[in-house]
Amino acid sequence: MAEDLDRADPLAAFRDRFLVPDSDLVYLDGNSLGRLPAATPGRLAEAVTEQWGRGLIRSWEHWIELAQSIGDEIAAAVVEADPGEVVVSDSTTVNLYKLAAAALDARPGRRVLLTDDDNFPTDSYVFQGLAAARGLELRVIETDLDDGLSPAAVRSALDEDVALVSFSHVAYRSGAIADMATITRQAHDVGALTLWDLSHSGGSIPVPLRSSGADLAVGCTYKYLCGGPGAPAFLYVRRDLQEELQQPIWGWFGQRDQFAMAGQYDAAPGVTRFLVGTPAVLSMIGVREGVRIVAEAGIGALRAKGQALTEYLIELADEWLIPLGFRLASPRDSERRGSHVSLHHPEAWRICRALIERYDVVPDFRTPDRLRLGPAPLTTSYADVWDALDRLRRLVESRAHEAYPTQRPRVT
Amino acid sequence: MAEDLDRADPLAAFRDRFLVPDSDLVYLDGNSLGRLPAATPGRLAEAVTEQWGRGLIRSWEHWIELAQSIGDEIAAAVVEADPGEVVVSDSTTVNLYKLAAAALDARPGRRVLLTDDDNFPTDSYVFQGLAAARGLELRVIETDLDDGLSPAAVRSALDEDVALVSFSHVAYRSGAIADMATITRQAHDVGALTLWDLSHSGGSIPVPLRSSGADLAVGCTYKYLCGGPGAPAFLYVRRDLQEELQQPIWGWFGQRDQFAMAGQYDAAPGVTRFLVGTPAVLSMIGVREGVRIVAEAGIGALRAKGQALTEYLIELADEWLIPLGFRLASPRDSERRGSHVSLHHPEAWRICRALIERYDVVPDFRTPDRLRLGPAPLTTSYADVWDALDRLRRLVESRAHEAYPTQRPRVT
Repeated sequence: MAEDLDRADPLAAFRDRFLVPDSDLVYLDGNSLGRLPAATPGRLAEAVTEQWGRGLIRSWEHWIELAQSIGDEIAAAVVEADPGEVVVSDSTTVNLYKLAAAALDARPGRRVLLTDDDNFPTDSYVFQGLAAARGLELRVIETDLDDGLSPAAVRSALDEDVALVSFSHVAYRSGAIADMATITRQAHDVGALTLWDLSHSGGSIPVPLRSSGADLAVGCTYKYLCGGPGAPAFLYVRRDLQEELQQPIWGWFGQRDQFAMAGQYDAAPGVTRFLVGTPAVLSMIGVREGVRIVAEAGIGALRAKGQALTEYLIELADEWLIPLGFRLASPRDSERRGSHVSLHHPEAWRICRALIERYDVVPDFRTPDRLRLGPAPLTTSYADVWDALDRLRRLVESRAHEAYPTQRPRVT
Repeated sequence: MAEDLDRADPLAAFRDRFLVPDSDLVYLDGNSLGRLPAATPGRLAEAVTEQWGRGLIRSWEHWIELAQSIGDEIAAAVVEADPGEVVVSDSTTVNLYKLAAAALDARPGRRVLLTDDDNFPTDSYVFQGLAAARGLELRVIETDLDDGLSPAAVRSALDEDVALVSFSHVAYRSGAIADMATITRQAHDVGALTLWDLSHSGGSIPVPLRSSGADLAVGCTYKYLCGGPGAPAFLYVRRDLQEELQQPIWGWFGQRDQFAMAGQYDAAPGVTRFLVGTPAVLSMIGVREGVRIVAEAGIGALRAKGQALTEYLIELADEWLIPLGFRLASPRDSERRGSHVSLHHPEAWRICRALIERYDVVPDFRTPDRLRLGPAPLTTSYADVWDALDRLRRLVESRAHEAYPTQRPRVT
């Protein structure tokens, strides 16, 4: 069955475009750190020895517009955006700060920042910091953590005091997809701006920024975009907002005619004004390679495979794991789900440890009781899913996890 | 003469620890982008293929404390600081923003941020942005741009309205060293905090943070620390200030017990609270290698060679270049000068272009009329300095630069 699905998989050949040195390992955490594209080591080595080593400072001619050029590749292939609307820079967290601050400044007098309790922690922390610094209310919608954010809940939390609305497009635990178009329309109806976190959607599902009229977005490049550990993030600012908004961290990479070294800051035209300091060039090279392989596979094909893989995973979970005490922690309807699935189990922490250490399967643990399984469509086969769930079933049946601590140790 | 100096140079062997693929090139811009350590490509390749490619998400055990561990190596070898006072993160500009904002918050009611007109543009832009957002006065001292900042000028600009004082330790154009101890004492006398930019001093001269009682500092890793293009920056917060200050960008890498994924931000103890988002790991690997080679050479030996190289450079310039219309744009006393020297010439832009393209010497141009020559002590020989100045003399005598545009083209 898995073998049949793999034979029919139009993306099957892409696995060979990645370094997969350990064929026994089943890696279901490509949504935390995507695998290494096979072309990346060579590109990096070339950037290091030829560009840095030989070209030295002169190689800035190759690097000075990487932020914009990789941004344009993301706009063309990963999210629905036009050239000049996306740049790569900083971390996701710093980008959230820049765009949220710019949006709050653009809605003076409004005193509410709206998010939900299912947003990723770093998003919540950024908003808490901004709310504290500015004396704003951070309004937090309670969400069904297995089923995601409902537009109705957003609508009832919105009023004309709301300056900015910010949610994850795909929830990091459940994988639930937020309805970007409806929520954006509701926010616009009360005059608020929207800021979307695309970390778990960019590279796994279509991201309808243009058609939903979204204002702002940030996204991660080291998950589905396979850019490498901690690779710089991207940000999106809708064209007609770019001259209206001003981000708070004024730096020389956001300056008009940067190398004129003028004394007075004068924000560059377009999306460049959302850049700050010198970009981490070597890490950017990894992003470019990852984005290109995603572009080649095509977001439509990736989405189709992501749905099929997670449907297959849930089918096996229903048959093998539910009887062992697991419970689905993600939307059942694949139209409402990204490319990962979570399962509740009261022993999730120790099962996760045992699965990694004794069964050569890498899932992720998510608080308080979730096992998160992310079969990244570019690099995961149906046979991988079968193997992982079979090993998981055998692990729990054998009680091998009981040798591990029940709880994640607390770090002080 | 140059050959004798090279034979007696205790750091001469370090040149072989770098990739120097083009022996005709004289590279005098190591203070913009340091050369590639020969060990770095291998370390990076290992991090890419073994840690990322094979270890995947499990390799975070190697990466999760890179910010702190490389910070401690910088504290041990590059600046005068204790373990737990330095971390590597973000860009220099983002770090300037975080620390300046934290300092301003710690001096409520004071309405002046003091800097000078010789600070690097990105520093000035950050301060302009903070002053605009908070309605503060940015007080700018006029400096002798060839001779650097005088403590007397700082003293007369200080009063009890000043919250924060921020200067470059070594001026990016003239190379003039600011008197960190005196200026810090003067600032403390009026109750202000100090924030030092170490971009041109870290790795080239001793940085007396501890003995001068400096409060805060940021520094660059891709110049004298040879970390690679755009490599993440470092920041310093004096131990006793760490719990008192709070930086504005609250993110998960600054959170206590980060992977508990708590809903409420709770700043981590120590210098970790000045981190924000996921670090650019591949770029950090380069920083670690660069810092280690600087540590091995020793800052005392680097300082001594930096003084000797620039003294030799000025001696040749006096003999060969002053008669051709050049004028020294740096302090003449090497005790007051870092590891680079600038020369005024009315045709500096086109001379710089011709020197790179026709004479295989890479200097830097600095507005409006400066040729900046940075013989980085780790990788530059006395023979390099002789060659560079000899080629520069021949270029100007032959008028080869007159084939180039007189001005840097303006980018709109």
